Amino acid sequence: MANTSSTTDVKVLGAWPSPFVIRVRIALNIKSVKYEFLEETFGSKSQLLLQSNPVHKKIPVFIHGGKPIAESLIIVQYIDEVWSSGPSILPSDPYDRAIARFWAAYVDDKFFPPLRLIKSAQGEEKAALVKQVTEGLDLLEEAFQKSSKGKAFFGGDRIGYLDIAFGSTLGWLRATENMGEVKLLDGAKTPGLVLWAESFCADGAVKGLIPETEKLVEFAKLLAARMKGGAPPKQ
Amino acid sequence: MANTSSTTDVKVLGAWPSPFVIRVRIALNIKSVKYEFLEETFGSKSQLLLQSNPVHKKIPVFIHGGKPIAESLIIVQYIDEVWSSGPSILPSDPYDRAIARFWAAYVDDKFFPPLRLIKSAQGEEKAALVKQVTEGLDLLEEAFQKSSKGKAFFGGDRIGYLDIAFGSTLGWLRATENMGEVKLLDGAKTPGLVLWAESFCADGAVKGLIPETEKLVEFAKLLAARMKGGAPPKQ
Repeated sequence: MANTSSTTDVKVLGAWPSPFVIRVRIALNIKSVKYEFLEETFGSKSQLLLQSNPVHKKIPVFIHGGKPIAESLIIVQYIDEVWSSGPSILPSDPYDRAIARFWAAYVDDKFFPPLRLIKSAQGEEKAALVKQVTEGLDLLEEAFQKSSKGKAFFGGDRIGYLDIAFGSTLGWLRATENMGEVKLLDGAKTPGLVLWAESFCADGAVKGLIPETEKLVEFAKLLAARMKGGAPPKQ
Repeated sequence: MANTSSTTDVKVLGAWPSPFVIRVRIALNIKSVKYEFLEETFGSKSQLLLQSNPVHKKIPVFIHGGKPIAESLIIVQYIDEVWSSGPSILPSDPYDRAIARFWAAYVDDKFFPPLRLIKSAQGEEKAALVKQVTEGLDLLEEAFQKSSKGKAFFGGDRIGYLDIAFGSTLGWLRATENMGEVKLLDGAKTPGLVLWAESFCADGAVKGLIPETEKLVEFAKLLAARMKGGAPPKQ
């Protein structure tokens, strides 16, 4: 099916800073699928976005042959199933697949929500958030040691579902370290993840998609200014 | 693989009132898989539960050949993939599968959380929760009309992934109507869902698993009494 899809068949509605959008783009790169990237402007929602995801009104939305799908991890699974001739994203073994799904859901439910709050938190609240995130990283280090079996990625020799789910947050992890003046990914405590993060960001399917720390920091500051009633961020 | 599994190979750690546990049991019934049901006692967590789901420490846990899996929808997908010779639970078409996954996630993230709060809420808070739930039911009615294409279930002629995800909450939906003195599933507004709920509860794979309203109401009252420092519920 990969070879019969024209670029206009495949559209991604998104924005460059969103880890959830990055997931979809990495999955498409793995499958060598060309796509049209329709950038949403922060602070407004396009008519196409509202029509395509009327329930959540959120990016990313993936549109294939005119049919929309929302929710990043659901989109990644769809891409894996439709372009099945390309390298697999989900592990082939059902148990490994269940474990990858478990940790991907963990990233979304327990790891990323406190991470995104650190940069604007202070005092005890900040300490509690940092604790949640570092405990999450300890668990993910353990999961990495078990899943990777000595290889570079959660998925083994090549990046897979959990690599994408977790790796997509690395830009914000670094930006948060910078803005929150905290060390989160620590080579002494999570040596496997530190090496994994390097391999992940250098991967051909990922390159150019994880935003530079400075760019995210600048974006976050503009966003914070706007939330306080300042000028809307230009981008 | 179904025929080579002995009962002791397959264990479900759960409790009868949990919709999440019910999902796993329905999926196993669909696949005609025999299993051992290990009932957790409310208010305490067994050593096996803590060992098998150390991250969330929650039921259900599914143990297959000694290997544990947590999170109900992940377990249902695993069961569908492992016992693939039985009737399919997920739709066969990737797009239909994505849509079923989308609505199942909606049930967990947006529909069930407000539903479980109604029975103990009052005044404006209660009205807001009821509004959220009934709006959710309107959306699910729309999804039902689209997915079922005139058939009895979201999955068509037989119950599938979204039927299980949503249908597992029907016991609590009814108990909430009873305790909260509200009408939620309304034949005038959601006629498709009312008929679907009847067909679902009468299905051979479901029968006996959706608890009776009176039993859930009694359980909820005992639980509420315990939360207020009363005696622990016997069950």
